[in-house]
Amino acid sequence: MRAAVLRAQGELVVEQRPRPVPGPGEVLVQVRSVGICGSDTHYYEHGRIGRFVVESPMVLGHESAGVVTAVGDGVAGDRVGQRVSIEPGVPDGTCVHCLAGRYNLCPGMRFFATPPIDGALAEYVVVHEAFAHPVPDAMTDDTAALLEPLSVGVWASQKARVTAGSRVLVTGAGPIGLVALQCALAFGATEVVVSDVNPRRLELATALGATRVVDAAREQLTDPGIVADVLIECSGNARATLGGLAALDRAGRAVLVGMGSDELSLPVPLVQERELELTGTFRYANTWPTAIALVSSGRVDLDRLVTATYTLDRSEDALTAGHRDAETVKVVVHPQE
Amino acid sequence: MRAAVLRAQGELVVEQRPRPVPGPGEVLVQVRSVGICGSDTHYYEHGRIGRFVVESPMVLGHESAGVVTAVGDGVAGDRVGQRVSIEPGVPDGTCVHCLAGRYNLCPGMRFFATPPIDGALAEYVVVHEAFAHPVPDAMTDDTAALLEPLSVGVWASQKARVTAGSRVLVTGAGPIGLVALQCALAFGATEVVVSDVNPRRLELATALGATRVVDAAREQLTDPGIVADVLIECSGNARATLGGLAALDRAGRAVLVGMGSDELSLPVPLVQERELELTGTFRYANTWPTAIALVSSGRVDLDRLVTATYTLDRSEDALTAGHRDAETVKVVVHPQE
Amino acid sequence: MRAAVLRAQGELVVEQRPRPVPGPGEVLVQVRSVGICGSDTHYYEHGRIGRFVVESPMVLGHESAGVVTAVGDGVAGDRVGQRVSIEPGVPDGTCVHCLAGRYNLCPGMRFFATPPIDGALAEYVVVHEAFAHPVPDAMTDDTAALLEPLSVGVWASQKARVTAGSRVLVTGAGPIGLVALQCALAFGATEVVVSDVNPRRLELATALGATRVVDAAREQLTDPGIVADVLIECSGNARATLGGLAALDRAGRAVLVGMGSDELSLPVPLVQERELELTGTFRYANTWPTAIALVSSGRVDLDRLVTATYTLDRSEDALTAGHRDAETVKVVVHPQE
Amino acid sequence: MRAAVLRAQGELVVEQRPRPVPGPGEVLVQVRSVGICGSDTHYYEHGRIGRFVVESPMVLGHESAGVVTAVGDGVAGDRVGQRVSIEPGVPDGTCVHCLAGRYNLCPGMRFFATPPIDGALAEYVVVHEAFAHPVPDAMTDDTAALLEPLSVGVWASQKARVTAGSRVLVTGAGPIGLVALQCALAFGATEVVVSDVNPRRLELATALGATRVVDAAREQLTDPGIVADVLIECSGNARATLGGLAALDRAGRAVLVGMGSDELSLPVPLVQERELELTGTFRYANTWPTAIALVSSGRVDLDRLVTATYTLDRSEDALTAGHRDAETVKVVVHPQE
Repeated sequence: MRAAVLRAQGELVVEQRPRPVPGPGEVLVQVRSVGICGSDTHYYEHGRIGRFVVESPMVLGHESAGVVTAVGDGVAGDRVGQRVSIEPGVPDGTCVHCLAGRYNLCPGMRFFATPPIDGALAEYVVVHEAFAHPVPDAMTDDTAALLEPLSVGVWASQKARVTAGSRVLVTGAGPIGLVALQCALAFGATEVVVSDVNPRRLELATALGATRVVDAAREQLTDPGIVADVLIECSGNARATLGGLAALDRAGRAVLVGMGSDELSLPVPLVQERELELTGTFRYANTWPTAIALVSSGRVDLDRLVTATYTLDRSEDALTAGHRDAETVKVVVHPQE
Repeated sequence: MRAAVLRAQGELVVEQRPRPVPGPGEVLVQVRSVGICGSDTHYYEHGRIGRFVVESPMVLGHESAGVVTAVGDGVAGDRVGQRVSIEPGVPDGTCVHCLAGRYNLCPGMRFFATPPIDGALAEYVVVHEAFAHPVPDAMTDDTAALLEPLSVGVWASQKARVTAGSRVLVTGAGPIGLVALQCALAFGATEVVVSDVNPRRLELATALGATRVVDAAREQLTDPGIVADVLIECSGNARATLGGLAALDRAGRAVLVGMGSDELSLPVPLVQERELELTGTFRYANTWPTAIALVSSGRVDLDRLVTATYTLDRSEDALTAGHRDAETVKVVVHPQE
Repeated sequence: MRAAVLRAQGELVVEQRPRPVPGPGEVLVQVRSVGICGSDTHYYEHGRIGRFVVESPMVLGHESAGVVTAVGDGVAGDRVGQRVSIEPGVPDGTCVHCLAGRYNLCPGMRFFATPPIDGALAEYVVVHEAFAHPVPDAMTDDTAALLEPLSVGVWASQKARVTAGSRVLVTGAGPIGLVALQCALAFGATEVVVSDVNPRRLELATALGATRVVDAAREQLTDPGIVADVLIECSGNARATLGGLAALDRAGRAVLVGMGSDELSLPVPLVQERELELTGTFRYANTWPTAIALVSSGRVDLDRLVTATYTLDRSEDALTAGHRDAETVKVVVHPQE
Repeated sequence: MRAAVLRAQGELVVEQRPRPVPGPGEVLVQVRSVGICGSDTHYYEHGRIGRFVVESPMVLGHESAGVVTAVGDGVAGDRVGQRVSIEPGVPDGTCVHCLAGRYNLCPGMRFFATPPIDGALAEYVVVHEAFAHPVPDAMTDDTAALLEPLSVGVWASQKARVTAGSRVLVTGAGPIGLVALQCALAFGATEVVVSDVNPRRLELATALGATRVVDAAREQLTDPGIVADVLIECSGNARATLGGLAALDRAGRAVLVGMGSDELSLPVPLVQERELELTGTFRYANTWPTAIALVSSGRVDLDRLVTATYTLDRSEDALTAGHRDAETVKVVVHPQE
């Protein structure tokens, strides 16, 4: 089979690899769609993300969907033919964190396209059957792949305890910010303010239901009209984060999703006097059933985020699309085309 | 002013009473709309509800809205002219339950139309300013009055922890069941099954977004296709309650809202083996801001529940409308007409 | 090896069985102590517990501890020689309940001495390494075995949200009630009332820290002096349960631990007017680390509950000890003696 | 009556003031003991704390207890003679935060010795009857006064969700750190590490139950042996805070209690990868019943913290005692002596 392999920083090659064979409890998935994430691009351009370093050739891609074409020992044969969305991280299942339900924090996690684990930018991939989530017929392959970033948004709303009537501020309107916006609405938020410096993304945010958008290049989040119960920080930008914290009402919650700033000058008196709660998210846990339900019920639209489609051979173009075209929101690769 | 007074069981008289004068911290509200609740009808017909007995003449009505026309000491004068929805229970504010935020459990609560406190079926009423919630211009008087039953639904979804992706079963499609349905959807539920024996109410449930309706006269809640995370019991019927409990998935939550059955033969092994959580609701606390936001954002439609409007003089007809017309869902009284 | 096998209702035979061999991920444990639970006795006497029926010979016993003597593939060799407490239920690890952290509700659970799974009343047993919890040197074998019933008490306090200052009522002072009492204190409860009909058990409750005991044969739980935030029901007796519910303050929580009554005539108005929360427990999840810490820090005393010790050959006597001697609280079997 | 009035920065005068008269709902308390808090000393030395500036003469002191000697309208006469601990902040009772139970965040809060509200360093003080908490006869006046700082510790453990088996790290062993330590133990923590630079305070921490102490002048919190579920930061020192955060296990919680650092260089990747939760505390809410229960049950010892006692005339010495004597932990003033 063919796979898009990151051989070294800036060197992506589509090469032949043996088709993987599903082990016990695993399924073989013919990959139909793979979303390109900022982290894929970051590995491609920098060869690392923080303490995670690509030291040997690695297949990129962790947002994927496809069709089960074979099963390993112990897996029901009728799973063959099933369309699935792949949850790309398989935890060890028995550490204290796994047993407590927070398997995203499992130290033994094996996560697609996180060194040294190969990802899904290939014609086939194997995964544990429990992490190959069946999707309805009506769901497109692209949407099924994008349940992964949607999960990031679901997790953020859960961590932030967004509920009916919540007033939410989303800083950053990239793909994660735009799913965070949709999730906040799906969790019942009745005000969702979205800020970004890219006017086109703010237009899309408005189209997706934002009740107000803020052009961060011109306006301040400290506008007294912005008071939020929840901040979902998706920009990774320190100024946006601080502005967002200042917009929180007493007893507000902030969830740091965006990566980028290594240190944040946290205003301790603000956190104390308003008893703000702040946390960060690391991937997600138990989100696929919710993500599938939100899409199936029409509450979230993922196809709308897809701005371009590439073949596997053009994976390198897919990785760099965001730099070439400011209209880019989300690009996907179709390995079978 | 005129007021609809329950003099004794079955004896409702519209009589002249002195217009009340707002005390310190209170506002005088000219009442524009009053919803009729099953409890009003129950007091009219039986003179009591459980341990609450009408022993002296009492004004009925606790779902109300109107316009502030005067204020007491310590209240800002600019509240005059404000359209408000009235939260009909004023707690003492300093008992252990009030201080902990569960003021609905305050032993010193003074609640409209609960003996011996007068209700709102009158031309004017006074209430503490904090419980006269301003409403947007676009909200109708009837909807503003019906924020009270909506609050019951909001509280039920909060108690049941309904969230994005929840599978909810609502038993009973009367006014409370229909607001519970709408609230569950507003809290993010993606499946809401509604059961009732009245086909017309099930039609309305479907129109309001139920994903499935069950005619309890013909079908069983034990249909294997019905699996719920949450039961919101609004019928007060023991058979419906037990059927609903049986439909709960492991770790499911049941909230008993409907009144009617004094005892329920609880299946203890079911509760234990599935670790079901069960609770009851008593009114609500802190729900008005959410209720206003849900209506204002278009997530809940209350006007659609109103099937007839009466003048104050015809209050007795309003109280008995449900018995005369099976099409009745919610009736309201307009005391100024 | 020898094992105490329940061949049929009332027929327990100590017979030779092949020593089990640890599979991948498993350890072989030489069993040093096994606590006898009421459920063991119930299987012995009735051949079933509710829907769980002993249809083929089964080894009893699920409260056990011992020493690792061999390991299966993938298990670190240095576990050999480790003293361990055995968590007797191994879930499938990948169902929705397991992934969410509530593995006690796993439909695929394999639990010791629950038909058709063999238990620990034998010289050796195998178990998944993650469920063989290392214990400190200072902990006795009996205590290590009794971490299992302690876990039931830990789980009850967690479900009931017992915390510093809680007022707790424990109905039933059998082994589970006595660990529930100790757990409630360890979770910070400052009042723990214990009720039972057995004066000797009430004496033990007092010795273990109960702040008040109630002889249920003579006193009523409806004594106005008893007001609780939490009811931990360990008797399985309907009258005790109803008395306990009536003693709950507004916003109180009840956890039904004891088995026995199939139906409970639940007073719905009480549940509603006080907004009581009620749930049942089914075993436990993630409790061993807490249980070990509570014993190690001296907050819980399990050895004190042991009233007699038996050899494996006298397992039948151990199972019936409670019927012969009213002083019996907990008996243990030492299979190596 | 006499009162210790801060006339200006560094100028404290004991002067005659009219004895206050209890208004409706209030009680007059003859003050028996007042604890001196670091904030009192800070106001005395700097004339301000952050945005709170002493602009006119103000009585200091907010940790107090005494005896009710008169009552205002609407207060039961039998409260006269009652010994009470005073909760020094009275909220408005009707804002959204008060109604939700988080009255410590009430914008209309009137708090003793926070400009321009007078405090308790006087012979008499009035307070709303609901905030004059009756204490048992066996409780000393000093302990009753020190329920205020104990409340800070209770609130911290509640915010941090300390429970049975928690591993807790307390940074800073001043009076607040020492009550935080005791509270963590009372909430069930089985490991409580305390760090400070003052060896005498670490000795006291050990005597009060710390399972390990760390001399921060010599050891690092990054010692791999220190792994905590909860950080209760009581030093206000940035280095201690960062060291404490680094010691948190995945899913750990940090509560910032100590004041001092205006900005903290928060390591965002750490917060994200471990999904740490961080919050600050602002006073407390609903803590007195718990505080009273913890002392009464012997779980917390406050008298042990008192290192010196002063008369009202020597209030100035009391405020500066900590600077003169490194042995000082907590000093109290007895206004009636």
